[in-house]
Amino acid sequence: MELLLLSNSTSDDGYLVPALDAILELADGRQDALFVPYAGVTRDWDDYTAQVRDALAPVGIAVRGLHREADARAAIDAATLIIVGGGNTFRLLKCLREQQLLEPIAQRVRAGATRYVGWSAGSVITSPTIRTTNDMPIVDPGGLDSLGLMPFQFNCHYFNLVVAGFRGETRDQRLAEFTVLSPEMPVLGLPEGDWVRVSGERRTLHGEHAARWFLGERTWDITAGALEVPR
Amino acid sequence: MELLLLSNSTSDDGYLVPALDAILELADGRQDALFVPYAGVTRDWDDYTAQVRDALAPVGIAVRGLHREADARAAIDAATLIIVGGGNTFRLLKCLREQQLLEPIAQRVRAGATRYVGWSAGSVITSPTIRTTNDMPIVDPGGLDSLGLMPFQFNCHYFNLVVAGFRGETRDQRLAEFTVLSPEMPVLGLPEGDWVRVSGERRTLHGEHAARWFLGERTWDITAGALEVPR
Repeated sequence: MELLLLSNSTSDDGYLVPALDAILELADGRQDALFVPYAGVTRDWDDYTAQVRDALAPVGIAVRGLHREADARAAIDAATLIIVGGGNTFRLLKCLREQQLLEPIAQRVRAGATRYVGWSAGSVITSPTIRTTNDMPIVDPGGLDSLGLMPFQFNCHYFNLVVAGFRGETRDQRLAEFTVLSPEMPVLGLPEGDWVRVSGERRTLHGEHAARWFLGERTWDITAGALEVPR
Repeated sequence: MELLLLSNSTSDDGYLVPALDAILELADGRQDALFVPYAGVTRDWDDYTAQVRDALAPVGIAVRGLHREADARAAIDAATLIIVGGGNTFRLLKCLREQQLLEPIAQRVRAGATRYVGWSAGSVITSPTIRTTNDMPIVDPGGLDSLGLMPFQFNCHYFNLVVAGFRGETRDQRLAEFTVLSPEMPVLGLPEGDWVRVSGERRTLHGEHAARWFLGERTWDITAGALEVPR
């Protein structure tokens, strides 16, 4: 099982630019990627696919959009490199569930038949559920269970911002609500610019910023290096 | 139908203090309130109920917690003043749905048999759905449909914060995702400290801060006064 799970895609250096080396390493020679744009809501899926195509052209990876495939299931079954972009996690999950693509994707990734790159929503759905997404539930995804490839939950764009005058919950308060109700499920708060590389049972955190584990009532920060999932 | 729908409960002046006059006006002499604490996650429902009880004692309103009632449905059917507190909207909706209380509450409010005070999650669930909540989907509510008392969606704690370095969506971007997929449903972004008073078909916005309508591709700000739901 080979995955590259990024917190985010945009950067001051350009779209996906800080991740290009990591994507090349993950691709390991594969030059045809199947892109899943379903998380995109406010932009056209063709435009979204073109943006990713343009970003990966310099490293020699060609990108097709899954939404343009006549037989989506067949496209998944033939893919050796699947890229799942960010946007709205509920929309992404709804589309994949309606097309009955969740299990085929999970099976191919688990079997090593395809490699997987995700960012933001595309990373969150590798968790057991999407219960730690930051996104607004703009559509009903028909259940919160997702790909379940990771034994923990991702929270992307992680930053515990505290704003004077804001009376809603901070990110840490929201995640504390999750851990109260799911005390045995670890959550990885993945800051902007960081990513996790998964190779079989080996997981490695990359990036400049400390990530944060949440498990039951405990929280603690970790820096780049081997990622041990806590129990 | 008489409702008081607040964006939030906490304030620099004390818990619920800026809303006390409005609550008294809404109660119109009713001195027994049934409090729904189900949105509370990180605090005990007894503690949450006690906090609301203490806050309303100075204005002579007694507060019982619905979670302590042996027959929740009977308690709803007897209530003449229902108060629904904030917290996590998904948890609130899940509890109400599991106890089959959504329709009884909606019916009693619509019939004028009970008045309704809500804040944050308690305001959001008066919308047709909870699709414009800011909360994390920490539990599966079994569907996003909610009380449907209002012909528009609430987004509470409304503020379009833009943070340097944050690569996730702003509030306005999240709401734009909603309006792309639900172009005919208005969303009211209700800032901290504001509230809406509903009396039959008459709705009034109160508070110091401009609220914001979102409808399709349009957004515009409104100030305190008669609240016309746009089409």
